[in-house]
Amino acid sequence: MAYDTPTRLRELRRAFHRHPEPGWREFQTTARVVRELEAIGVDEIAVGREALATDERMAVPSDADLEPWLERARDAGVREDILERTADGHTGVVAVLEQGSGPTVGLRVDLDAISMAESTADDHRPAAEGFRSVHDGYMHACGHDGHIAMGLGTLKAVKASEFEGTLKVFFQPAEEISGGGKAMAAGGYLDDVDYLLAVHVGLDHPTGEIVAGVEKPLAMAHLTATFEGASAHAGKAPNQGANAMQAAAAAIQNAYAIPRHADGMTRVNVGQIEGGTASNVIAEEVSIEAEVRGETTALMEYTRTELERVLYAAAEMHDCDVTPRVLGESPRVDSHPALRSLVGDVAWEVPGVDSVVPTTDLGVSEDVTYLMERVQANNGLASYVLVGTDHPTNHHTPTFDIDEDSLEIGVSVLANTAIELSRRRP
Amino acid sequence: MAYDTPTRLRELRRAFHRHPEPGWREFQTTARVVRELEAIGVDEIAVGREALATDERMAVPSDADLEPWLERARDAGVREDILERTADGHTGVVAVLEQGSGPTVGLRVDLDAISMAESTADDHRPAAEGFRSVHDGYMHACGHDGHIAMGLGTLKAVKASEFEGTLKVFFQPAEEISGGGKAMAAGGYLDDVDYLLAVHVGLDHPTGEIVAGVEKPLAMAHLTATFEGASAHAGKAPNQGANAMQAAAAAIQNAYAIPRHADGMTRVNVGQIEGGTASNVIAEEVSIEAEVRGETTALMEYTRTELERVLYAAAEMHDCDVTPRVLGESPRVDSHPALRSLVGDVAWEVPGVDSVVPTTDLGVSEDVTYLMERVQANNGLASYVLVGTDHPTNHHTPTFDIDEDSLEIGVSVLANTAIELSRRRP
Amino acid sequence: MAYDTPTRLRELRRAFHRHPEPGWREFQTTARVVRELEAIGVDEIAVGREALATDERMAVPSDADLEPWLERARDAGVREDILERTADGHTGVVAVLEQGSGPTVGLRVDLDAISMAESTADDHRPAAEGFRSVHDGYMHACGHDGHIAMGLGTLKAVKASEFEGTLKVFFQPAEEISGGGKAMAAGGYLDDVDYLLAVHVGLDHPTGEIVAGVEKPLAMAHLTATFEGASAHAGKAPNQGANAMQAAAAAIQNAYAIPRHADGMTRVNVGQIEGGTASNVIAEEVSIEAEVRGETTALMEYTRTELERVLYAAAEMHDCDVTPRVLGESPRVDSHPALRSLVGDVAWEVPGVDSVVPTTDLGVSEDVTYLMERVQANNGLASYVLVGTDHPTNHHTPTFDIDEDSLEIGVSVLANTAIELSRRRP
Amino acid sequence: MAYDTPTRLRELRRAFHRHPEPGWREFQTTARVVRELEAIGVDEIAVGREALATDERMAVPSDADLEPWLERARDAGVREDILERTADGHTGVVAVLEQGSGPTVGLRVDLDAISMAESTADDHRPAAEGFRSVHDGYMHACGHDGHIAMGLGTLKAVKASEFEGTLKVFFQPAEEISGGGKAMAAGGYLDDVDYLLAVHVGLDHPTGEIVAGVEKPLAMAHLTATFEGASAHAGKAPNQGANAMQAAAAAIQNAYAIPRHADGMTRVNVGQIEGGTASNVIAEEVSIEAEVRGETTALMEYTRTELERVLYAAAEMHDCDVTPRVLGESPRVDSHPALRSLVGDVAWEVPGVDSVVPTTDLGVSEDVTYLMERVQANNGLASYVLVGTDHPTNHHTPTFDIDEDSLEIGVSVLANTAIELSRRRP
Repeated sequence: MAYDTPTRLRELRRAFHRHPEPGWREFQTTARVVRELEAIGVDEIAVGREALATDERMAVPSDADLEPWLERARDAGVREDILERTADGHTGVVAVLEQGSGPTVGLRVDLDAISMAESTADDHRPAAEGFRSVHDGYMHACGHDGHIAMGLGTLKAVKASEFEGTLKVFFQPAEEISGGGKAMAAGGYLDDVDYLLAVHVGLDHPTGEIVAGVEKPLAMAHLTATFEGASAHAGKAPNQGANAMQAAAAAIQNAYAIPRHADGMTRVNVGQIEGGTASNVIAEEVSIEAEVRGETTALMEYTRTELERVLYAAAEMHDCDVTPRVLGESPRVDSHPALRSLVGDVAWEVPGVDSVVPTTDLGVSEDVTYLMERVQANNGLASYVLVGTDHPTNHHTPTFDIDEDSLEIGVSVLANTAIELSRRRP
Repeated sequence: MAYDTPTRLRELRRAFHRHPEPGWREFQTTARVVRELEAIGVDEIAVGREALATDERMAVPSDADLEPWLERARDAGVREDILERTADGHTGVVAVLEQGSGPTVGLRVDLDAISMAESTADDHRPAAEGFRSVHDGYMHACGHDGHIAMGLGTLKAVKASEFEGTLKVFFQPAEEISGGGKAMAAGGYLDDVDYLLAVHVGLDHPTGEIVAGVEKPLAMAHLTATFEGASAHAGKAPNQGANAMQAAAAAIQNAYAIPRHADGMTRVNVGQIEGGTASNVIAEEVSIEAEVRGETTALMEYTRTELERVLYAAAEMHDCDVTPRVLGESPRVDSHPALRSLVGDVAWEVPGVDSVVPTTDLGVSEDVTYLMERVQANNGLASYVLVGTDHPTNHHTPTFDIDEDSLEIGVSVLANTAIELSRRRP
Repeated sequence: MAYDTPTRLRELRRAFHRHPEPGWREFQTTARVVRELEAIGVDEIAVGREALATDERMAVPSDADLEPWLERARDAGVREDILERTADGHTGVVAVLEQGSGPTVGLRVDLDAISMAESTADDHRPAAEGFRSVHDGYMHACGHDGHIAMGLGTLKAVKASEFEGTLKVFFQPAEEISGGGKAMAAGGYLDDVDYLLAVHVGLDHPTGEIVAGVEKPLAMAHLTATFEGASAHAGKAPNQGANAMQAAAAAIQNAYAIPRHADGMTRVNVGQIEGGTASNVIAEEVSIEAEVRGETTALMEYTRTELERVLYAAAEMHDCDVTPRVLGESPRVDSHPALRSLVGDVAWEVPGVDSVVPTTDLGVSEDVTYLMERVQANNGLASYVLVGTDHPTNHHTPTFDIDEDSLEIGVSVLANTAIELSRRRP
Repeated sequence: MAYDTPTRLRELRRAFHRHPEPGWREFQTTARVVRELEAIGVDEIAVGREALATDERMAVPSDADLEPWLERARDAGVREDILERTADGHTGVVAVLEQGSGPTVGLRVDLDAISMAESTADDHRPAAEGFRSVHDGYMHACGHDGHIAMGLGTLKAVKASEFEGTLKVFFQPAEEISGGGKAMAAGGYLDDVDYLLAVHVGLDHPTGEIVAGVEKPLAMAHLTATFEGASAHAGKAPNQGANAMQAAAAAIQNAYAIPRHADGMTRVNVGQIEGGTASNVIAEEVSIEAEVRGETTALMEYTRTELERVLYAAAEMHDCDVTPRVLGESPRVDSHPALRSLVGDVAWEVPGVDSVVPTTDLGVSEDVTYLMERVQANNGLASYVLVGTDHPTNHHTPTFDIDEDSLEIGVSVLANTAIELSRRRP
């Protein structure tokens, strides 16, 4: 089972590659997905706020950050009805295909790109073959462009097959900033899903290799905190200030020193900082962006609690205030062994697959775990499938690219798994 | 002795007030000074690079920061010959008036404004009376507009007087960033100056009060430092990074903890910080802006040496590199008692003066000390004179303003002092 | 197979329990072991410096710390020939039993106690039954007293059995301070050992349970470091000092903040500190004791390298000197699966054993790994066996005690394993 | 006016020098002073608790620290009635001489020694001439032995003179630990004092020089703080601890970084630290000794408040508790100009005086300021007089010694000042 032609998958992927949009700003991407869904023909298309629980969104940018992308989409001719439903940080789509009685199978793919200037080197294929990003400073450097193409391809393939049941494809926004998973998990469409598949390309697995279901995505939380003190002239009266710079420095030093935990791996990082106005002024405001991770959700929460303690005490130490704010978060959820096993069996039969790995540790975070958690809480099964693809350089580098031959393999594995699940229904 | 009319001084001050330009970008200001000097008629006008030792300039902005101000000046019709001489960070003027044999008297005034949005409040006179800054985000909030007017006024008054000798007025750029003093001190025009006067308005002294010569300006150095490490994925492999964030935090904590000194007051501040790219990336680069001060030049140098040790060790501790760079600097030089005394005697005779304070501690830094140091090294005398002015709010606040009646008082004190000096020559 | 009577094992263990001696000071303990070996009758008894590679000893106390224990042993009537061979930190014994041709089997037990005041509570059996420590402030709170008894019992049991081959029992000093393992591993007697068994009681395993071979002892290094600066009067001239207190504080803060490692678990701790002389004096000297651990030897070494970098940079930052010195160290070595398996099989047949656990993670450090490493480097096999024992409170607490019934079980498992190994020789 | 013979002053000083006792433990010293007073003959001798406000004592040692000194005194034959009145940390004496109507003049001298081993070098006169400390590890290394001799000598000289009025000599305990001044100031005997003199030898002034009255003793507070956390195994479960070591390190780093103050000089120092039990245990308890100083009492209090904030926040940051406790304290009080002037006039007439310095900055702390503060609050006048003495090495060094010829000079200056004051009474 596959999309009409591999060529079509390649074209789609390249179209998305040319128009990368960051989290909650996937206005053109959403519109293009809707257009493709209308062409394929599905039973329901829930767009933007129809597909999301508004209050559960995280890491939504300010209006000032959203606006230019909305304008760009409008200028590019995106339909007003789509812009209305996606405005104010409500991108994303759920497509529903009803095809007789049977299980409800979900497939989740993600839409967003990252802020990174794409390479212009001659040996970078997107540059050489003319589908390099046209949005300066932004790039599909993680493979989500391929994920979208596979999501559409799988839908078309399933529609054309003997599949009996319901297929829902979740085109999720804002994965890179851990912002969209929770909102889409709570949007309603997931509640009757019996089996959920998620997909990611690459991650150092070559074309032809399938990992049937990953384990140990790290639980993660992403926080911001602004230390607020009082400015003063650093030469005349430093004692009249409340030094947000010292508070931030004390916080950073002690954050990295949060005790390692007996139960397993934890991580903490302060990755960004900005503050103060001039060398001769006691800094009134310094902001940091930080994250904590854990091998389990409990370990992440331990680290977050400790980090918050450190932040508050560092502020207090220098007579400042601070209010840490969680921007994004994702729990740890593993792929279910039974579903992993079925995916593995199906994958072995797919042409082009020459290696099936039962499971690997993911080692990073992914907010699809919100969707997996909800499905498994409802007694459904979930598996996060890796579709190998040769990639010349690491994910999140300016010369990242995928082997487009892997797209058809991915579509076959996903579509055939859905079909197999519809056969096995009790 | 005074400028033709107080009205003219007010008009001049307001003209400069409307067009504030930050350090090394005083292109329109320089041009306007030149125009006024040509109108007054002097014997020599050294503009920009003619008046400065290029290699001694400090804190010169990047081309990208200079360019918009140059363009703005060009658009405003500034003459090309002036733009040529001031381009690339070479603003400033020295005017020379030769009037018979006698001592060479110098007067230094400063040209630059600061980056601060001026108040639009109705009770802020510049707003109410239409001479508020037309350069958004920049403001003459320290009184340099008044200094320029006094410099021109003094020149005109001296020219019209019985003064015999040479008067040189140094219109110095980039005082606020401690960038221009050293270059103007080394520009050549100062080398034969017998007496140097510098002037500042306000500083909490009311209209009618004159401080004959200040003491104890703090010696100061302003540094920048960028910690350079290596980025890495904070979740997957934090050990592969070299964490510039930790280096900066360790540096800040320990910078403030530099030992207090037996010999007197020291100061240290890290006033600005910026770095890192994302919460999930070990920060590759973090930059800080810092300053050190001391009651004496030696105490400042002690603190700078200690700060540099802290910076290097903090970098080393986290396997990073750092290169501290001094952006601006000024020594401590006190007003000479003999010249102070003469200024005080002269001031008592000036109409409008109702209080003469022999000396006060300045308590802040001022790069005129480079000029004072050079004059006194050549066996000349220097005094830094404060001209009181009622100011509604503190210097460096959005509602700062001066009492324009003080301008004429200042001109009289300065001009009469020059005249008195020419009388007393040996 | 077992020691003549369980009563005898109990008596022996209690005799050792009454006379706890810390690392490298086990003078009475060594003498008593020699006396027992002479009673049993073995082919060779290597005492103290005969059994150790002097230069490989670590964490050897100063003469001042050794002397009182040597005196106490002399006072207690220990033979001069034994004192001579153990003086200057050379405690320990190797016993060799030759019984026909066959494999050489090694057994390692450890001799030392810790500095902890033993409980005097009525429900603490050693107190109630009169074998509480007679060395105030020192206690066998880890079970080494039982290990020694089992070592002797195993030797006697093997001697009385059909065992063919050579049995060497290594009575190792200074395990608690990671000081003796390396020296005993390099002492020569280990070089022809084909199979090495090590034994520990308890560790939360109940009487009747055997763990056939542990995995993942943490690699560990124990360091000391003294920051040396210069004192000065803190009120008059703090700048004239070089503040060892600040250096130590900076080191501690940054030590805990050493990056977590992608490859697995690391630990770092600064567990002790002492320094300075008075509140009004800048501290000239501050000493710390620290340790690093890792899931692998490489991870421990990574952490040690980073710690050393932090120590040197912290010293440099405050113009101090520091020389970190490694006091003790142990690598990570796992039990060999084949030998584990054989121990497990044997254990199942021992009366009193009701649970056999193939393996567990040790989670702490043990310098027997030096011996295991050497044996396995010579193509031998090694396994670290846990003999369960009910213990009322945790190891290293004042009320720690063992269930003496476990001693006979342990002897049987160890002796029978040796016998089985002699049967299976190729 | 002087003591009967210089020889007697020397003998007395040497007797005290041989028996140095630290603060609140001056049992033999007190007894010897009482004996001398009885020999001279005075009107009232208030001993120990009779001379002190018990509740105002600071830095009183524990019973365990007091007991050995009390025993030593008892063994040396000190009278039981004196031991009773001085026990539990109540050393010190006030002597009252009533000699007709006239002003009440006070003289304060201090009794205590410091913990420092006195030199045994041949060129150290106390060693060479047999009056080196017989209390190992303690030494009169600041000159208080000379102060006591001068106190007694002045009393005798005044008694023999035409002085009319009342003379009170305050033999104050525990000056070195800032513990006795407040209690003696509040003991009642000071309340009617019209003029208070205090005396110190040396401080880099040579024999023959008198400083009539010092200014700017630093206000000071001496604190101790113990961070209490929870221990845990550093390898197995560092997260289960609450790390007092990290709390202390964070506190130290941030204590030194307390902002410098606009109003003048401040100091902060953490001079001593001790804590933790072993490198593999998360430290449960770490104690520090610290001090803060200020050019004024307000500046000292600012620094103490900031230090306390830092301590509490550092504890909170690492989930520990801390209770800072002030051990000793002294305000800043300057010598009164009028009394200084009179002392200077008198000093000029004293044989052996060849230099009179009106005033100098003290630069250190002295708890006589409590007495000076109380006298000046009652409209009396106070002056802290320096009596120059050649000293081979600095105060608080093992080879400190004084030039005993200065003792008679000191007695003359003090006695003659008292006499002059009685003449000038209004």
